[in-house]
Amino acid sequence: MLGGSAVHFSLAASFFDVVHVVGPVGDDFGEDEYAVLRARGVETDDIEHVEGGKTFFWRGEYGWDLNERTTLDTQLNVFAEFEPKLSDASRAADVLFLANIQPDLQRRVREQCADARFVALDSMNLWIETARDSLIETIGSVDCLMLNDGELRQLTLEPNFVRAARQVRGWGPRVVIAKQGQYGAAMITDEGFFALPAFPLETIADPTGAGDCFAGGFMGYVAAHPDAELDHELLSSAMAYGTALASFNVEEFGVERVARLTSEEIAERVSELRRMTHFIEKPIALRG
Amino acid sequence: MLGGSAVHFSLAASFFDVVHVVGPVGDDFGEDEYAVLRARGVETDDIEHVEGGKTFFWRGEYGWDLNERTTLDTQLNVFAEFEPKLSDASRAADVLFLANIQPDLQRRVREQCADARFVALDSMNLWIETARDSLIETIGSVDCLMLNDGELRQLTLEPNFVRAARQVRGWGPRVVIAKQGQYGAAMITDEGFFALPAFPLETIADPTGAGDCFAGGFMGYVAAHPDAELDHELLSSAMAYGTALASFNVEEFGVERVARLTSEEIAERVSELRRMTHFIEKPIALRG
Repeated sequence: MLGGSAVHFSLAASFFDVVHVVGPVGDDFGEDEYAVLRARGVETDDIEHVEGGKTFFWRGEYGWDLNERTTLDTQLNVFAEFEPKLSDASRAADVLFLANIQPDLQRRVREQCADARFVALDSMNLWIETARDSLIETIGSVDCLMLNDGELRQLTLEPNFVRAARQVRGWGPRVVIAKQGQYGAAMITDEGFFALPAFPLETIADPTGAGDCFAGGFMGYVAAHPDAELDHELLSSAMAYGTALASFNVEEFGVERVARLTSEEIAERVSELRRMTHFIEKPIALRG
Repeated sequence: MLGGSAVHFSLAASFFDVVHVVGPVGDDFGEDEYAVLRARGVETDDIEHVEGGKTFFWRGEYGWDLNERTTLDTQLNVFAEFEPKLSDASRAADVLFLANIQPDLQRRVREQCADARFVALDSMNLWIETARDSLIETIGSVDCLMLNDGELRQLTLEPNFVRAARQVRGWGPRVVIAKQGQYGAAMITDEGFFALPAFPLETIADPTGAGDCFAGGFMGYVAAHPDAELDHELLSSAMAYGTALASFNVEEFGVERVARLTSEEIAERVSELRRMTHFIEKPIALRG
């Protein structure tokens, strides 16, 4: 089914700003697939169609509690030979998300967007295992690293998020986000720590793409505030929008739910999330 | 070293109200151990000294990321023959916490505190495996079940917290709390969901007792509000105090840190926790 980091991200971010998606597809990516993106106003000019090629393919399996994922098949296909050539419109991006792919490729995209004021990067265990040095070099060129919790531990060899974030910040990024699946997401910036639980759902149909939708909501929120300072407060609100978008995505398989999402539903979920994490500090006389 | 659910709980709760601790100890529980409790004003009259006995003993091992715990040795010792006989002062308890022990024993304590307006219970995998029916019966007599995340899944056979909480609420309790270790804690009441991350720490010396200190802070906060309605709002604030107390406990081994804690430190940590979970909903024009 239709999926992939770029697709999930683009649909989620499309609620906030115009998204220019960059990447190669094969003959199996046809009008129906383009239509899903265009219906949400996503700019597809930088999607490169490789004649006779096959689109990137991933197949995996989730464990009983959905927090463990096993990859059954990864086919890079058209990505194996891809050389990113960005249009002027994409090169002028203010906010750039380097979705999960080989880190050399991510870097070649990064270099073409020299003026972006906020760049984030996602990756995965495959690249940590096979291209660690290149990945760390690419991480050094971005403002924000977003990784799954377990992959952040694998990359830094640090089980503790505070220490892992310190290590990553030493490589360059000033913002580190750990995606924690059903537990939510945590962030460390120059100004400190912020965390939100995942939105509670009774049924999770398919966790695939949740991290990309989180990134889409997060980066979209940043892009929607071109004049705001990119401080802890702004990024904390962005975490809430990311959490909301991710929660919709997992309600159904593939991109179904996000493709028909409305602004009102997003705003309502963010409000609910605020209520679910808000507590009152009542004065209390403690017995010191 | 000194530890155990009742000890960790009592010290944490002692910041909020007078705690009457009930349970048996052996000859190895001497003046030094009593002194730690009494220094925090804990009432020890209902601690039963078993001549020639040995205090309950637990020894375990934590995995690399501290979220997995393996029990190496559990000796019930004096608990094997314990028959709880509560003093009038303990029977008059307004708020009762049934710390983790054999569920028949928990029920015999519960029955002696007929007038308690809020009763919570903790348990563990040992009782889920060896005394499941008795545990479910005891759960049916309390207002709030607090379990580790993994144990809640083991008890309900439900990986999803919303569904697990629904099942438990069907047995009697109106409040269900999942303790999620480094990820924090989540709660479901009649009024909905609430969650907080664990307080971020760079060094965790010893996670043992964190759950009991969480319970102590949570129940202590409830006990400190005898005239307040026991609603979602009050219990959400209680979650913050529980989270704060648990975070201090893990900073050092045993009870060291909580034994010398101050009210000011607790208040400051609750404020920090509020800042770390607070986000602003800025008006934003979404592209529906």
